[in-house]
Amino acid sequence: MSNFADRLMEAIRAKGNPCIVGLDPRVVDMPDFVTSAMRLSRDAEDAARAITGFHERVLEAVADLVPAVKLQIAFYEQYGLPGMRAFADTIALARSAGLVVIVDAKRNDIDSTAEAYANAFLGAADILGRRVPAWDVDCITVSPFLGRDSLEPFVAACAQYGKGIFVLVRTSNPGAGDLQSRVVEGGEEISSHLARLVDDLGQDMVGDSGYSSIGAVVGATYPHQAVQLRALMPRAIILVPGYGAQGGTATGAAANFNADGLGAVVNASRSITYAFGDPAISAEEFVAAVRDNTLRMVYDLTEALAHRVAS
Amino acid sequence: MSNFADRLMEAIRAKGNPCIVGLDPRVVDMPDFVTSAMRLSRDAEDAARAITGFHERVLEAVADLVPAVKLQIAFYEQYGLPGMRAFADTIALARSAGLVVIVDAKRNDIDSTAEAYANAFLGAADILGRRVPAWDVDCITVSPFLGRDSLEPFVAACAQYGKGIFVLVRTSNPGAGDLQSRVVEGGEEISSHLARLVDDLGQDMVGDSGYSSIGAVVGATYPHQAVQLRALMPRAIILVPGYGAQGGTATGAAANFNADGLGAVVNASRSITYAFGDPAISAEEFVAAVRDNTLRMVYDLTEALAHRVAS
Repeated sequence: MSNFADRLMEAIRAKGNPCIVGLDPRVVDMPDFVTSAMRLSRDAEDAARAITGFHERVLEAVADLVPAVKLQIAFYEQYGLPGMRAFADTIALARSAGLVVIVDAKRNDIDSTAEAYANAFLGAADILGRRVPAWDVDCITVSPFLGRDSLEPFVAACAQYGKGIFVLVRTSNPGAGDLQSRVVEGGEEISSHLARLVDDLGQDMVGDSGYSSIGAVVGATYPHQAVQLRALMPRAIILVPGYGAQGGTATGAAANFNADGLGAVVNASRSITYAFGDPAISAEEFVAAVRDNTLRMVYDLTEALAHRVAS
Repeated sequence: MSNFADRLMEAIRAKGNPCIVGLDPRVVDMPDFVTSAMRLSRDAEDAARAITGFHERVLEAVADLVPAVKLQIAFYEQYGLPGMRAFADTIALARSAGLVVIVDAKRNDIDSTAEAYANAFLGAADILGRRVPAWDVDCITVSPFLGRDSLEPFVAACAQYGKGIFVLVRTSNPGAGDLQSRVVEGGEEISSHLARLVDDLGQDMVGDSGYSSIGAVVGATYPHQAVQLRALMPRAIILVPGYGAQGGTATGAAANFNADGLGAVVNASRSITYAFGDPAISAEEFVAAVRDNTLRMVYDLTEALAHRVAS
């Protein structure tokens, strides 16, 4: 079984860019060609079919362009059990398109419960001696709020199953500072403390690429902090959310990369999959719009990285 | 629609105790009478049937004794889609037994994603203008790591739908202090800062009972801190995990209550549902054992509270 960081870095090399497309289903924002079939009953089963149909088209548009997709699980959970079926179906579609699958779940809990989450997304549950995988994706985001011991079961699962995690270090929202920027004893911010923790947890998980399967989440909206945090965890792959709709720019996102232009992946969701203008658009026009949006992001980020490496 | 805090306080009054039974499915630890039917295929569908069968018996044992149950969602997620069906079935069983249903999910994310989680568990998703509830429970636990703005969509959903949240303030694991006990500018611990935030967020959600629908999680393993945190959020209902198997005692849990002996609920999981001895036990013996375990917890906690009020 291969190292997750190596698989992700190889996918980035193969596609020539570190852009990730977010698959965050919001049925109300989908184009008519997806939702027209459900205008009568409008129940969660309908929503699930719409989600799968929508993602088939999105993947048709982006699968040859980007190395990975990121599923924000909250948007599936809000549609209940049918939503979770659409989650499983979307994972299967992305896998068969050869993409690395990231789940943005921000999970965590203590000891055996953290282990259960690790089983759910990275490993396999024990059903009377038989190990049965549940969602089985490449990696998930996890929250560090409960401390180092709560992260260790995830690190163990990554080692055992060749998977990865991205630990929240600095989120992209305006209120992120409430906790994450608080200065603790020794004059260090919580985010810096967490960056060092990520570096430490990831020591034994560094692959041939020089990067570790224990990564970090650092929002694109705080470029100044990103440079400092990057330096504290040089081997961590940084997952950068907040690009596009949340106000993060390519230059802001570029601050998370190492000097060699590697070491981060940048996610955009709404600005790729929901920026198509007229809801009456045809399926073909939708695919073209999503493809255009993706190519524009790839171009912008490549420019910003080239500029940064040159400067 | 009634206030969540009032509903929970009324359930506590009606049952005469604040004990909560955790429904955390671990198929490998279930008695033979539940698992014997699945020894051949041992797949997730089998696991789901075992979970529902197990919880039918647990609820038969405890429904008339306690005000509420707490489902730890990680243990369902690890069994994939069938596990989530068992989650929905367990919620339905607990509801029809008249119990308040708490989901320990420790969810959170930013802006519209936090809203999606709030839709999933407390409100309803918008499916082309039709509001469709997903899991629809009474309350969930949420993580404060992303800051105040990440909690606000949950508070709004609580107000709109008459639901509640318990914000993590101090968890019961040994590593809780890594972040939560860090002293920030002004000499205050992160946990104390969070307790004041909970108090503030809950201001407008106080019911006739004098308690707020915005509660807090404070582990039973830190009684000294519990007294301080209790004082900072007098109107918050405190959910106390870590009783029993995690080493929290009745006296430790009692530290989370107000002087009137109210204001907290105490959860036990493994020490109630998995402390039955011989796996070859009959269904009737299992029900009796779970009932005994629950009555012992009720007795111990009632004693500790009486002693505390008297002292």
